[in-house]
Amino acid sequence: MIDVTVAMHRGMVVWPGDPPFSDELWNDLGEGFEATMRRLSLSTHTGTHLDAPSHVIAEGGGVDSVPLSYLVGPVAVVDTGHVRCITQEDLERLLPDEVPPRILFKTRNSHRRLIDEPCFIEDFVALDPSAAQWLVNHGIKVVGIDYYSVDVFHSSGYPAHCILLQSGVAVIEAVRLVDVKPGVYRLIALPLKLLGMDGSPLRVILENLEKD
Amino acid sequence: MIDVTVAMHRGMVVWPGDPPFSDELWNDLGEGFEATMRRLSLSTHTGTHLDAPSHVIAEGGGVDSVPLSYLVGPVAVVDTGHVRCITQEDLERLLPDEVPPRILFKTRNSHRRLIDEPCFIEDFVALDPSAAQWLVNHGIKVVGIDYYSVDVFHSSGYPAHCILLQSGVAVIEAVRLVDVKPGVYRLIALPLKLLGMDGSPLRVILENLEKD
Repeated sequence: MIDVTVAMHRGMVVWPGDPPFSDELWNDLGEGFEATMRRLSLSTHTGTHLDAPSHVIAEGGGVDSVPLSYLVGPVAVVDTGHVRCITQEDLERLLPDEVPPRILFKTRNSHRRLIDEPCFIEDFVALDPSAAQWLVNHGIKVVGIDYYSVDVFHSSGYPAHCILLQSGVAVIEAVRLVDVKPGVYRLIALPLKLLGMDGSPLRVILENLEKD
Repeated sequence: MIDVTVAMHRGMVVWPGDPPFSDELWNDLGEGFEATMRRLSLSTHTGTHLDAPSHVIAEGGGVDSVPLSYLVGPVAVVDTGHVRCITQEDLERLLPDEVPPRILFKTRNSHRRLIDEPCFIEDFVALDPSAAQWLVNHGIKVVGIDYYSVDVFHSSGYPAHCILLQSGVAVIEAVRLVDVKPGVYRLIALPLKLLGMDGSPLRVILENLEKD
């Protein structure tokens, strides 16, 4: 069982302009309370997270509209090597004929360990709209990537997001694939049960298939 | 696959005195932003949640100290019928000789559907300290219950919590078992990866074992 989730803590990297992750002690054992409890404040897109259709589509569904059956099942971790922006041609070259229904892209971002950097990095690898369309055309249910967006940083209008989410593909961002070998696993990706929200942090683990 | 998680939304029930769950639009597609994003504010013990040792034990570990291997695996859903406070004697009577390592208690709380009530209910069923000690003595890894505490409401010092958490048992509260038949399932309970926190909301699903 491999945990591919980014740890959440004060000072963690968030998308530029998003609210920071913060926590405050609400009740504290050290101050005579019978139990310690904290209040958290965070964006719906903190750390490893799921994008809901409503993130970029007016009238789109919330995270609770993404079927759990999409988020649990066989997944391929695909290494895209030194590709700088993943295109349709890259997918045709890299993916096997039998494309699994869930794909996590281990890109140059992981080779550079961007996810472990203390600051946000803008020149991350993401999906060209042609790749997003190809994934939709091939019936992919889940697309994950190893930094904070499936669109490149200076995109306009989030085209890859729109193509994927409009078609009901579940999008998982900031998956920590640094230590994961390419291959097929069982994905278990569980978001919070947030009604009508545009995204949710989630916990993502990969199970070795033979272990089951 | 059965989702046994309480839905999270504004106005949801929280423990008396805890901060409410709230969300606010931070960026809104409807106001010209390219994507909608919210800021959430919630306690570490909102909805279906995991208690960390540090919740009631000074120097106790955070939620990240609870092994994921505890939170994924075979679990028994045990119906305690109309018992008002679960004692050691109840466990000896109700549990089979071969006790599974994870137990979710479906109590009178579920028969009364307390988890679906719009207000907090104080007279919920929980564990007598003798039951907590029995579970520790029998090597149980995970104990879940179908309302917001493993201790009765008017307990002093959270004795069941202390016994379980001091011994490294993972405690899951507010599991929605209303629609679940007693029996053995595969538990998948994934908290957020919150470093050093006293608790975390989590998503809990039960898989039918034969399906795997």
